Amino acid sequence: MTTILLQLLVAYAAARLLGRLAGALGLPAVIGELLAGALLGPHLLGLIHESEFFDAFAELGVIFLLFEAGLEARIRELLAVRGPAIRVGLIGVALPFAGGLLAAMAFGEATSNALFVATAFVATSVGITIAVLRELGLQSRRSARIILAAAVLDDILGLIVLVIVKGVALGESDPVEIALIALEAVAFVAVIVVAGPPLATRLSHLVRRLSPGIVFDASLVLMLGLSLLAEYVGLAAIVGAFLAGLLLGELEDYDPVQRRIEPLTAFFVPFFFVLMGTYVDFTVFADPFIDAEIAVFTGVAVATKYAGGWIGALKERGSIPRQVGAGMIPRGEVGIVVAGIAFSAGAVTEDVYVAVISMVLATTFLAPFVIRRAFARAPQSAETG
Amino acid sequence: MTTILLQLLVAYAAARLLGRLAGALGLPAVIGELLAGALLGPHLLGLIHESEFFDAFAELGVIFLLFEAGLEARIRELLAVRGPAIRVGLIGVALPFAGGLLAAMAFGEATSNALFVATAFVATSVGITIAVLRELGLQSRRSARIILAAAVLDDILGLIVLVIVKGVALGESDPVEIALIALEAVAFVAVIVVAGPPLATRLSHLVRRLSPGIVFDASLVLMLGLSLLAEYVGLAAIVGAFLAGLLLGELEDYDPVQRRIEPLTAFFVPFFFVLMGTYVDFTVFADPFIDAEIAVFTGVAVATKYAGGWIGALKERGSIPRQVGAGMIPRGEVGIVVAGIAFSAGAVTEDVYVAVISMVLATTFLAPFVIRRAFARAPQSAETG
Repeated sequence: MTTILLQLLVAYAAARLLGRLAGALGLPAVIGELLAGALLGPHLLGLIHESEFFDAFAELGVIFLLFEAGLEARIRELLAVRGPAIRVGLIGVALPFAGGLLAAMAFGEATSNALFVATAFVATSVGITIAVLRELGLQSRRSARIILAAAVLDDILGLIVLVIVKGVALGESDPVEIALIALEAVAFVAVIVVAGPPLATRLSHLVRRLSPGIVFDASLVLMLGLSLLAEYVGLAAIVGAFLAGLLLGELEDYDPVQRRIEPLTAFFVPFFFVLMGTYVDFTVFADPFIDAEIAVFTGVAVATKYAGGWIGALKERGSIPRQVGAGMIPRGEVGIVVAGIAFSAGAVTEDVYVAVISMVLATTFLAPFVIRRAFARAPQSAETG
Repeated sequence: MTTILLQLLVAYAAARLLGRLAGALGLPAVIGELLAGALLGPHLLGLIHESEFFDAFAELGVIFLLFEAGLEARIRELLAVRGPAIRVGLIGVALPFAGGLLAAMAFGEATSNALFVATAFVATSVGITIAVLRELGLQSRRSARIILAAAVLDDILGLIVLVIVKGVALGESDPVEIALIALEAVAFVAVIVVAGPPLATRLSHLVRRLSPGIVFDASLVLMLGLSLLAEYVGLAAIVGAFLAGLLLGELEDYDPVQRRIEPLTAFFVPFFFVLMGTYVDFTVFADPFIDAEIAVFTGVAVATKYAGGWIGALKERGSIPRQVGAGMIPRGEVGIVVAGIAFSAGAVTEDVYVAVISMVLATTFLAPFVIRRAFARAPQSAETG
C-alpha cells in the first residue's frame, strides 16, 4: 500500500508542479504533465511504472475529462456542426490511413502488415486537445464542437477500419459481422444523441426532486455504465463517457452535478498524462533506421490529420479550418492498442511497433503547441457562435 | 480495463443503492455498503475480488474520510478533550489487550501466540464510526472529538504494543529500538499538533493569495504525504490523513478546499466499505469450534473496548461515556494485518486467524447499530460544547 500511495503522491505532485511551471514559461500545462511522466517513468527515474492500479487512475482521468467535456457541450450544438464534423471525420480517417499505408510500405512492410500500421494512424484521441482548450478557456468554441463531434465519428470509423483490416490480414473477413459491429457502434451513439434530449426533458422534473447526492451518484453510475457499454460495442470508453456527459448536460439542473464532478476531474486527469509520459523511451532513438521511421511516421500522421481536419472544415470561417486540423492531430491509446495487436499477432516487427508508439507519443507532445498556435492566431470575435 | 470499470461500476452502484435502502429502512447506511461488499465479494457473487487497484480505491476512501474528519475538527478543540481522550486511549488499549489475551489462552493458545491475538484486539478503526456520525450529522459533538483524539493515541499505543509483542514472541526484544519507534510515532503526531496552529496562522496570508487550484493541489499532496509519513513511522495511513486535515482546517480560508474535497470523499468512501464487506465469508461458520471462538472473541472485543471508552470518559456528562464506548468498538484493517503477520509467522493456527478476522468484521457490522443507539438516546442540548 505504501508504494501505491507513494506513486500517487509523486505522480500528482510532479504533474501539477511541472504543469504549472510549463504554464509559467508560456508552454501548455499538459506538456509539463507529460514530461513529469517521462521523468518519473521506467526509462528515467523508475518511480512510476505501468500497473493495474495506475492504469485505473489514468483511465478514470481521461474518462472524467471527456465526461466533463460532454457536460459542457450541448447535443443541439453538436448536431448544428454535423456537416463539417462528418466531413472532418471521413477525410480525417481516409487521409491518415492512406498516408500510413504508403509510409509503412515505403519502409518495406508487406501490404497486410502495412494495413495494421495504417490503422494505428486513424484514431484521434481528443483528451489532449480538450485539456489544452480548457486551459485556454476555449472549449465551447465552434471549432471545439466540430472537433468533439468529429472525434466521436472518428472513433466509429476507426473501429470499422480495424475490424476490416483484422479480417483482411487474418483472412477471416465476414461482411455480415463487419456490418453488425458497425451498426452496433452507430446505434449506440445514435440512440443517445437522438433519444437523449427528449428523455432528458422528461426526466428533468424527476431529477429536480431528487437530492443532489442521488443525482451525483446516478451521474457517476451513468458515466461508468456508458463507458463500459462503449467498450462492449468496440468503441473507446471515453466516447461513452462523453455521451454520458452530453446526456446529463441536457438536464436543466445539471449545474450542481458539474460542480461536484470538477474536483474529481482535477484529481484524476494528471494520472492520465503522467501515464502517457511514462511510455516515452529515449533509448529507441539510438537506432537511425528507427529514427527515420519515427520521423516519417510522425510527419505523415501530423500532416494527414491536419489536412483532413482542415479540408473537412474548409467551408468554415476564419481560422476554424486550421483550428480543427490542429485539434485532430493527437493520436492516443487506440493507436498503441492497434500496434500492440499487430505486434503480438506477429504482423509487424518490433521496429515498426516501436516506431508507431513513438509516432503516437510525438503527436501527443506536438499537438499542444500546434493547437495553441492555431487558436492564438484567431481573433476572439470571429470564432464564437 | 473493462473489468476494472465493471468492478468500479458494480461496487459503486451496489454500495450506494444498498446504502440508501438501509437508510430508508432505518438502518445505518454503512451497513448497506458493507452488505454490498459481502454480496459482491468472492464468497457470494464473485464480482469483486481484492486486487491492487481495488485496494488502492478502498485505501483512498478511508484516507479521504479521515482527511475530511480532520478538516472539520480543530486542534484546539481536540486538545480541550485531551484528558478524557488519554484515559480512553490507555484504558481502551489495556482492557482489550488483557481480554484478548485471556480469551486466546482459554482456547488453548500458548502465551506467545495469545499475545499476537491480544494485539489484534487493540487498534480501533474509526472509519466506520466517522461515517455513521457524519450520516447522523453528529461529527462535531464533544464525544466525537474524544473518539477522534483517542483513536490517534490508540494507534500510537497499538504500534508500541505490536513492536513489543513481536519482540517478545520472536525473541528479538530491543528496548532501545522500541523506545525509538515509540518516540518517532509520538514526535510525528506532536510536531503537527503543536507546530500546526502557529504555522497555519503564519501561512494563511500566503494561502489567501494563492489560486484555489493551487491550494487544492497542495492539500492533496499534504494528505498523501502525511499518510505516507505516518506509514513510514509505523502508524496507520489514516492517522496521517487525519493530521493533514487538522493542519489545513487551521487555515482560515480552508472552506473552498473542503467543498472540493467533499466529492472526492463521496466517490472513494464506498470502495472502502465494499472491500471490508468482501472479507465476509459465511462458510467459516460451518465449524462449531470456530463459531465459539468468533462469538467469544467478538464478545470480548466489544465489551472491553466499550468498557475502555466508557471508563475513560466517565467524568463526562450525560451519555458521552456511552457514546465514546460505542464509537471505539470497530476494529479494522490493523487487526487483520496483525492477524496476518502472526499467521504467516506460524504463531497462530488458521482457526485463530479466521476467528480474529471474523471478530474484526463482526465489530464492524455491530458498531453502526451500537453507535446509533448510543447517540439516539442523547438529548441534543446536553452534548454540544
